[in-house]
Amino acid sequence: MLQLGTSSLVIVSVIAVVAVVALVLAVVLRRQVLAAGDGTPAMQSIATAIQEGAQAYLNRQFRTLAIFAVVVFALLFLLPGDGGVKLGRSIAFLFGAAFSAAIGYLGMWLATRANLRVAAAATGPNGRQEGARIAFRTGGAVGMSVVGLGLVGAAAVVLVYRGDAPAVLEGFGFGAALLAMFMRVGGGIFTKAADVGADLVGKVEQGIPEDDPRNAATIADNVGDNVGDCAGMAADLFESYAVTLVAALILGKATMGEAGLVFPLIVTAIGALVAVLGVFITKVRGSESGLRAIYRGFYVSALIGAALAAVAAFVYLPSSFADLTGVGEALADHDGDPRLVSAVAVLIGVVLAGVILGITGYFTGTTAKPTRTVAAASRTGAATVVLSGIGVGFESAVWTAGIIAAALCGLFLIAGGSIWLALFLIALAGCGLLTTVGVIVAMDTFGPVSDNAQGIAEMSGEVDEAGAQILTDLDAVGNTTKAITKGIAIATAVLAATALFGSYGDAVSMALAELGAQVTTDGTVAAMLSYEIINPITLVGVILGGATVFLFSGLAIDAVTRAAGAIVFEVRRQFRDHPGIMTGETRPEYGKVVDICTKDSLRELATPGLLAAFAPIAVGFGLGVGPLAGFLGGAIGAGVLMAVFLANSGGAWDNAKKIVEDGHFGGKNSEAHAATVIGDTVGDPFKDTAGPAINPLLKVMNLVSVLIAPAVVMLSVPEDANHTLRIGIALGAALIAFAAIVAAKVRAGKIDITDGIDEKETVSTGS
Amino acid sequence: MLQLGTSSLVIVSVIAVVAVVALVLAVVLRRQVLAAGDGTPAMQSIATAIQEGAQAYLNRQFRTLAIFAVVVFALLFLLPGDGGVKLGRSIAFLFGAAFSAAIGYLGMWLATRANLRVAAAATGPNGRQEGARIAFRTGGAVGMSVVGLGLVGAAAVVLVYRGDAPAVLEGFGFGAALLAMFMRVGGGIFTKAADVGADLVGKVEQGIPEDDPRNAATIADNVGDNVGDCAGMAADLFESYAVTLVAALILGKATMGEAGLVFPLIVTAIGALVAVLGVFITKVRGSESGLRAIYRGFYVSALIGAALAAVAAFVYLPSSFADLTGVGEALADHDGDPRLVSAVAVLIGVVLAGVILGITGYFTGTTAKPTRTVAAASRTGAATVVLSGIGVGFESAVWTAGIIAAALCGLFLIAGGSIWLALFLIALAGCGLLTTVGVIVAMDTFGPVSDNAQGIAEMSGEVDEAGAQILTDLDAVGNTTKAITKGIAIATAVLAATALFGSYGDAVSMALAELGAQVTTDGTVAAMLSYEIINPITLVGVILGGATVFLFSGLAIDAVTRAAGAIVFEVRRQFRDHPGIMTGETRPEYGKVVDICTKDSLRELATPGLLAAFAPIAVGFGLGVGPLAGFLGGAIGAGVLMAVFLANSGGAWDNAKKIVEDGHFGGKNSEAHAATVIGDTVGDPFKDTAGPAINPLLKVMNLVSVLIAPAVVMLSVPEDANHTLRIGIALGAALIAFAAIVAAKVRAGKIDITDGIDEKETVSTGS
Repeated sequence: MLQLGTSSLVIVSVIAVVAVVALVLAVVLRRQVLAAGDGTPAMQSIATAIQEGAQAYLNRQFRTLAIFAVVVFALLFLLPGDGGVKLGRSIAFLFGAAFSAAIGYLGMWLATRANLRVAAAATGPNGRQEGARIAFRTGGAVGMSVVGLGLVGAAAVVLVYRGDAPAVLEGFGFGAALLAMFMRVGGGIFTKAADVGADLVGKVEQGIPEDDPRNAATIADNVGDNVGDCAGMAADLFESYAVTLVAALILGKATMGEAGLVFPLIVTAIGALVAVLGVFITKVRGSESGLRAIYRGFYVSALIGAALAAVAAFVYLPSSFADLTGVGEALADHDGDPRLVSAVAVLIGVVLAGVILGITGYFTGTTAKPTRTVAAASRTGAATVVLSGIGVGFESAVWTAGIIAAALCGLFLIAGGSIWLALFLIALAGCGLLTTVGVIVAMDTFGPVSDNAQGIAEMSGEVDEAGAQILTDLDAVGNTTKAITKGIAIATAVLAATALFGSYGDAVSMALAELGAQVTTDGTVAAMLSYEIINPITLVGVILGGATVFLFSGLAIDAVTRAAGAIVFEVRRQFRDHPGIMTGETRPEYGKVVDICTKDSLRELATPGLLAAFAPIAVGFGLGVGPLAGFLGGAIGAGVLMAVFLANSGGAWDNAKKIVEDGHFGGKNSEAHAATVIGDTVGDPFKDTAGPAINPLLKVMNLVSVLIAPAVVMLSVPEDANHTLRIGIALGAALIAFAAIVAAKVRAGKIDITDGIDEKETVSTGS
Repeated sequence: MLQLGTSSLVIVSVIAVVAVVALVLAVVLRRQVLAAGDGTPAMQSIATAIQEGAQAYLNRQFRTLAIFAVVVFALLFLLPGDGGVKLGRSIAFLFGAAFSAAIGYLGMWLATRANLRVAAAATGPNGRQEGARIAFRTGGAVGMSVVGLGLVGAAAVVLVYRGDAPAVLEGFGFGAALLAMFMRVGGGIFTKAADVGADLVGKVEQGIPEDDPRNAATIADNVGDNVGDCAGMAADLFESYAVTLVAALILGKATMGEAGLVFPLIVTAIGALVAVLGVFITKVRGSESGLRAIYRGFYVSALIGAALAAVAAFVYLPSSFADLTGVGEALADHDGDPRLVSAVAVLIGVVLAGVILGITGYFTGTTAKPTRTVAAASRTGAATVVLSGIGVGFESAVWTAGIIAAALCGLFLIAGGSIWLALFLIALAGCGLLTTVGVIVAMDTFGPVSDNAQGIAEMSGEVDEAGAQILTDLDAVGNTTKAITKGIAIATAVLAATALFGSYGDAVSMALAELGAQVTTDGTVAAMLSYEIINPITLVGVILGGATVFLFSGLAIDAVTRAAGAIVFEVRRQFRDHPGIMTGETRPEYGKVVDICTKDSLRELATPGLLAAFAPIAVGFGLGVGPLAGFLGGAIGAGVLMAVFLANSGGAWDNAKKIVEDGHFGGKNSEAHAATVIGDTVGDPFKDTAGPAINPLLKVMNLVSVLIAPAVVMLSVPEDANHTLRIGIALGAALIAFAAIVAAKVRAGKIDITDGIDEKETVSTGS
């Protein structure tokens, strides 16, 4: 068992201190945000309603998920493995889940207080700069918390478990990913059900503007921004952070020994330091756009981070693999320079982040050609808007996937033919990419906070036109930053998942080695162990992996359509039962809509969540570890393409609408505007529900697979393997996933958008 | 080298006779169709315009593709291999391409004559039965030609080349697939550009009905049905037939020796026989729907085919693998019963066809829940129609992919642990699926013929209301049968592609064996040879394979949007320049729109076509045979899901529109109707351009990979490999594909839908 030397322990302790400093800084930023003026009583009353709704939703969500976490905690003990490590892993799972939840809660808590303050600041002197500053500081507080908690968790595990840290870290990453997935799905359904429902009744049927206080769904819409775009996103990025770091540490230990366990932490700690820098240097100068200021902050901090990481590599690592303590056998005689390859890997990660930022900005920004083409398509109606948005989404997905693939090829090449080193470098590139995460979270939180601020301003009616324009501009910046975050997040998913294939393969090999001579040479069993994609049963895994991504996306989109339908009927009912609402005499019952969103989201998140957790179990136990690897590969391939397609077509539609609202092609209330509103509504569940949830989906499926791999080998390979138990587990898992889908169908029959329509309402067709 | 025994030669000769009989029958059916009454002079003049347009397009398309075919013919000689076989393969390539073209031409030729006769029959006595009979006989003639030409080609190759037949057949399949892909893409762009363009100006802007003679794009729309849905589809199914048969013969020879080369031909000949039966028993009884009659014909002929195939297996094959002449080494001591496993494999194929028919019918039919839900979503506007259609598409894709995966698993299991046998059984299941192809083609041709008949009736104004209703009903049947055909076609793609992995792996092994001791043990080279999906560079292949499918789909959809835009501007110009058109005094210049469609389609088909041909070359030479296998696997996984998603969401939108037009949710000209028209327009390029082209795309990429595999091994594995040449080829191929994409972008800048809009037309935005 690998022991850590004193110098390593000192370094990791210093890193833990850096993590704590990041957390302290989060507190400082939080205080700065709260110190800002909190607006008029009318604004405060709206903000309070949003706060209460968001808090109530998260509380109920956590109560639901706590049960689930306890069940998984227990299940983790059923897996084969050493008792002490298993206990550590299960406890780490709880910590990962709790941290993920805490980050989400903090994000929501602060955002529901910052929204009001941004709205208030926009009306004051120097409104543009001041509003942007508060919104960005809010993000900074969340970003520092993500970085700090992720780093503190990983460092603590390394300090306590030393050489056993990798197995324990799997639990930490799994907890973080599982909770983040549920928060992304639940929050995503909430926010888009409310948004789509509010738009369908408000904008489309009644012709009242967005965020009009007469719309009963408007508070729910604003609550949604906080529980979905804010809490869900923060948990998701924390999970990306944790899982990537976990993959790097697992592979680092396997390849570079002690240094491999410490160096990824150093890189990430540097990321924490430059994130501080990024948050503080991002200031809107004069009349420049908020996006420009954010880009500057990002690029400056990314460059400095890359430079510092390179310096760290050359100072900390030796010049030859043979000099590494506890170096993996396969690498001892590798003739590369660990300093150089590590520095280049981190650099590739940072460059990848920058390129994805550029691609996403190009495809979804209001000033570049793709989104302008979508906007121009509005002249021939909604169908061409939808089609050209889909075209933009496909194309941007291909570019993004291509760039990620190119990065993987580059990392593979610099590894000089060693697959293990290649895997570690891939994970290290992930860490490089994550040095930008503090700024990324800050950028993304910007979106929902300014969206909410705009809502509060509109509803209170107490913000003047200049203030409103400032908030609108901030909101448009938020659309692009949100799309960028999703691109970065899915890139981390690909890198982490690819790297985790290493620990997957390792877990399988170790399980096989333990079985030794008991391994049969039966053809079917050999096929169950085959990772070869030309093996038909492995290819079946690839097809099923892709299918799971499609099913997950479809379920999420359907859930939104369904929940939005329920909201449409509720808002219509309120308009019908209380005619005073339309005239402004009666206050709509906002709480009822928030309640419907809360209940529906919690109910709807179960189906995709169970699918993600149980699909790999069914495939693994049913078909074997080879097809399960195929399943993960197929899911990664389809996942990265679908995630970017959904995020960017949604972003392009949203900003195409903004272009038309800016007065092009007829401007607001023209036919062209109606066409882009349709495009935007189609894009809502694409970009904020289905798309972003694919990132944690991939991580969850990967980590479930890593965890179950030894059990699958034990039940499929030996001559006397208990195939009945294996098939039983597979069928049980398939049944749970299937039952969850059927439950969703039954719900669809009860509360879906066709509710209330029966043959009586249709005319006879004569056929 | 395997020699065929006399009895085998006799059997194959009998099969060739069966093929000729099928072709004779095609001629008989053609004569029956042409013998029917050909309507009034007004109808004839419209039909002549359609005939001329379709003929002109196909002639120009063939001239363009002939050059391409000659280039590929030459390139095939550059690949390594035995001279005689290489010549045979190249000649077979030309035959495959020519047969594919001939089938397409025949389909178009007959359909453009049958349309008129169906329209005329609908007005006569017994209009329903008589119209359906002519439409279905037309399909029967095309179906018999597909079956006859495919079988005659394969039988001839086996008779001439005997043991060398597999290598030569690769050429035959490749020619068929390549030409079919171009015809699917070109025809698909033509038909949907005309359809979307006509709808956008006619229905949406001018409020005139579909097929109104005042719309200048209406002849082009009807031409499109014939060159896309008819010629493209016929070539596509011929290609499916040829490639599946090729895969079965290649693997049959490798596993079961002589019998393996003959048995797949027997199964397919049985398919030809039952197709005759299917075509003749399909009659509309009394007032039953056309779909019901078609389903009955399908299921009866499928069942009889399966039974006959099982009998053939038990009569022709021995009871033990050891008794097979020329049996593969690995299988000689296999303890299964060749008769049983072969019969079950064919049965699985037939059942798969039936299940896909059921699933597709359920998800796209007007009477089942999914499409009704899409129709009901029209009450909340176009956005929910689009979203629910996408949900239906995703879900049906998952079910279809799941069923295909289940079939693969079943075939794998009955192979009893032998991968080679599993691959052959997969190909044999493909042959089983293809026993239904005669009826499938007949079903599918039904669609464009009745669509065209409706167009001719509407434009001539000489069909009474009862006749029009008959034609509308026939058209709705066509929507579902078209979706079913696409489902069956993509299933053959998965089966054939999976099976072809066997010949791919075989080609690589043989090339490696030839190199012998020259194989290096360098890690990078080993990775280039690794099929293991947990190898990062193989996973890169998976990602790139999926990305190619996304890019191909996006390019096809964009091409339609672009070409439709050009048509919108032309039709608008005609309305503006000739006010007499709207009043019915001036005849629109139909020919100009046909010309635009022709030119645009031919130009636009190059980009996706080049991408398909060169992407595998770039990946193979650039990354190696392992990543190329990953590429194919990723393409298969993403391809089957995308193809079904695009086909079925499009089918559901089309029929949702029909439900509303039948009077539900407000009926024609209501808000709900406008919403479903938008859905249908989005679905047009999905279901008739991008979706169906994925099937030949997968085949082309697979066959290109099989063909280049030995060359890739030669240039990557030996110590003295010419890596410069290898990288040069990869970069060259990538460059060609990239240049094609850039060319499409440049075209987009010139003629796209934003043409004519510049800053002057937009209002100032103030920012």
